[in-house]
Amino acid sequence: MFFERVAVIGVGLIGGSFALALKAAKRCGHVAGSGRGAANLRLALERGAIDSIAPDAAAAVRNADLVLIATPVAQIGNVLVSIGSGIKPGAIVTDAGSTKRDVVAAARAALGARVAQFIPAHSGAAAASAALFRGRRVVLAPLEENRQADIDVLSGLWSALGARVSRMTPQAHDAVFAAVSHLPHLLAYALVHEISERPDSAELFGYAAGGFRDFTRIASSHPEMWRDICVANSDQLLKEVSSFSSELEKIKKLLQTRDAASLEKLFAEARAARRKWLESSRPGDEGE
Amino acid sequence: MFFERVAVIGVGLIGGSFALALKAAKRCGHVAGSGRGAANLRLALERGAIDSIAPDAAAAVRNADLVLIATPVAQIGNVLVSIGSGIKPGAIVTDAGSTKRDVVAAARAALGARVAQFIPAHSGAAAASAALFRGRRVVLAPLEENRQADIDVLSGLWSALGARVSRMTPQAHDAVFAAVSHLPHLLAYALVHEISERPDSAELFGYAAGGFRDFTRIASSHPEMWRDICVANSDQLLKEVSSFSSELEKIKKLLQTRDAASLEKLFAEARAARRKWLESSRPGDEGE
Repeated sequence: MFFERVAVIGVGLIGGSFALALKAAKRCGHVAGSGRGAANLRLALERGAIDSIAPDAAAAVRNADLVLIATPVAQIGNVLVSIGSGIKPGAIVTDAGSTKRDVVAAARAALGARVAQFIPAHSGAAAASAALFRGRRVVLAPLEENRQADIDVLSGLWSALGARVSRMTPQAHDAVFAAVSHLPHLLAYALVHEISERPDSAELFGYAAGGFRDFTRIASSHPEMWRDICVANSDQLLKEVSSFSSELEKIKKLLQTRDAASLEKLFAEARAARRKWLESSRPGDEGE
Repeated sequence: MFFERVAVIGVGLIGGSFALALKAAKRCGHVAGSGRGAANLRLALERGAIDSIAPDAAAAVRNADLVLIATPVAQIGNVLVSIGSGIKPGAIVTDAGSTKRDVVAAARAALGARVAQFIPAHSGAAAASAALFRGRRVVLAPLEENRQADIDVLSGLWSALGARVSRMTPQAHDAVFAAVSHLPHLLAYALVHEISERPDSAELFGYAAGGFRDFTRIASSHPEMWRDICVANSDQLLKEVSSFSSELEKIKKLLQTRDAASLEKLFAEARAARRKWLESSRPGDEGE
């Protein structure tokens, strides 16, 4: 597959990396970029990720055969409204957002019948490295209205960029990522926030070490992005918070009774499960 | 300070690293090692960390001027009982355990008046690298009975090995580490365990990525060691679990009301607190 004209709306980490990867894989002609951040756009132009800066999203998508929307999820609806009537017939439009049910709802509202051209997808954050999307998870969450041929083209394109592509419904996507991504982020934010509000927080942080640093790394994630994810996926996330709270209650009882054997068993089971996961996961699997 | 004869009881990561660091800093003559693990003892001998393998702890401490007990915390009591009568007058005995109130209680029970020679301490896990304890936190939790001169000698020794030494009471130590070390470990174990028990755990783990990996790294810690820490420090840890649960309840309400502004504020405050901590902490600060 080759796309003569590509539009990338939002040229941050994901959008910029996608454009660079397309170029490196020789899968595209001209790439037009647009977005809120002038600095990001200039950088993408300088790095050769995009060939031109469009004044707005509507201008960027004109004549584009492939459109990637890589803005924060809460903005995807507005972008779709602004480009809706300008999408070229036959073009594939996709996104990279971390939640999918809200994006699907926004796309239906914004695009009407043209929603058939929109294939929802979630792509993990690429490190700013030459490997880009190699080994990373990309989840396609296709709609019933999507053409099978378009889904296969998009899947093939991500595979060509080195990603491991899978498909699930928007519902399943949001449930899975609530458990393995959104909840851990929330817990990390919660721990750091709880400690930061104590009168002796400076002393406490003074003794925090490597384990704390890794555990809370994701509490340095972007607040606006995670606000949007938490609001968009609040129902699934609340389920996960409840499951986690139940587990914590179980452990609390083990601590109260000082049940050493059960604590060790639980820790050993967790360690074994994590080890099994690490052994089966591939290197370079970094996406969120 | 120079110690003619040193005994290291338990030559795992901490004990072995301590002996190596002493040698590298030319602060000791002969180092005798003892412990449960024959393989660790042979390795320590081959690496030149220890000069001889003693048949048991009592034999190791004979004539030693400095004794480090670096076994799991739950075994420190038994070690102290077995070496009690053999401790050389004037020798300094110390430990490296992650909890302190239980160690202090065990030391008082085992040593009687000789407890004055025992200076409780907590040393972070050293990575097996040349830098060893450089930049790591070591906390001394001295007893009223300790001689000030001995405390100063031990403090100076750890400083000479590159550690950042501070002092606090055993009570304060256990409270601080419950918050910044023991609780994060418990939460990481809880998350992995909760997911591992679900029927669809394989699929869920299949989508776990870099954020999950860092967040749960400490769930690969040693189950026996963490069982001992959790039991020894269960009261402080239960307080921390309660504080964390309250924070989680607050966040749950924000999710239920989809209060985007308050979620963003909380995330931004956590990120700012973490950034401030990282900026003030020194590189190489890895201990637990």
